[in-house]
Amino acid sequence: MNFRFEDGLPVLRRTPGSLREMLLDLPEPWITATEGPGTWSPFDVVGHLIHGERTDWIPRVEHLLRHGDSVAFPVFDREAMFEASRGRSLPELLDTFGGLRAESLGRLAALDLTDADLARRGRHPEFGVVTLGQHLATWVAHDLGHTAQVVRVMARQYAEAVGPWRTYLPILGAA
Amino acid sequence: MNFRFEDGLPVLRRTPGSLREMLLDLPEPWITATEGPGTWSPFDVVGHLIHGERTDWIPRVEHLLRHGDSVAFPVFDREAMFEASRGRSLPELLDTFGGLRAESLGRLAALDLTDADLARRGRHPEFGVVTLGQHLATWVAHDLGHTAQVVRVMARQYAEAVGPWRTYLPILGAA
Repeated sequence: MNFRFEDGLPVLRRTPGSLREMLLDLPEPWITATEGPGTWSPFDVVGHLIHGERTDWIPRVEHLLRHGDSVAFPVFDREAMFEASRGRSLPELLDTFGGLRAESLGRLAALDLTDADLARRGRHPEFGVVTLGQHLATWVAHDLGHTAQVVRVMARQYAEAVGPWRTYLPILGAA
Repeated sequence: MNFRFEDGLPVLRRTPGSLREMLLDLPEPWITATEGPGTWSPFDVVGHLIHGERTDWIPRVEHLLRHGDSVAFPVFDREAMFEASRGRSLPELLDTFGGLRAESLGRLAALDLTDADLARRGRHPEFGVVTLGQHLATWVAHDLGHTAQVVRVMARQYAEAVGPWRTYLPILGAA
């Protein structure tokens, strides 16, 4: 599938609600669980998504529309949430993410883009020329990737608890 | 983590709502998408979860409590949904799954099990002796595994659309 607004936007609209439905008021061990040193918990992931709303998705759309491929996007800090989320609760982060996502989609709607704009070119600091359509498809796939990560981190807490069923549960990784 | 009722049940309670939040009223291409021949769409996964409620999770709990490890569980048909879901809509399947899951958790609560019961033994047709705790942990991990699968199947529809960003999106698989 190519990115089209009519397919992609409904996914972007749902991500905060999906994460809220999955995570809100879950017992603490699920929220702070990781896959080992250097990996992210569900709490960390929500913080990372917040940082993306603030500095990546719509800011880069606006940058691309302003500069085309003449000025590269500012670099995105994928670990900024370790500082930014400190001392905050998961319900706060979920609220913040929901509010920011709604605002992002409002800003996108206000730009009144059409499928013809998806070919417009920008410059990525590492990849060089990219299109608006690729950037927006990445927004969707990034949401889905981190949603899958949250679910996988949770599942893996039971890697031992399932006993011999592990063989049938590829999400748990090899024994 | 070992399975404990206080941690595991909140996850089992949330699965129907999470899938509903993700999938209800999404454009059709997401619902029927697969990862290629022989793989399952989000629609197929919800049907598979319904079949698990009907024939696997609580039926096997009741079987184990009745027979211990003297009689193996009946075999589970993991592809029964291809027949059972035919002609049904995704909203219907989501409603059915939500209703059956609530009923399953009601039946489980009525059994009044405690953490001490988690060591009780049953017999799996392939693995031999298993415990009630392993079975219940598997229920949770199975929910999470299929939730991650739904999200991954959706993400992979954009494997090409993201262009060079694929490198940063492990959920899309290697190019």
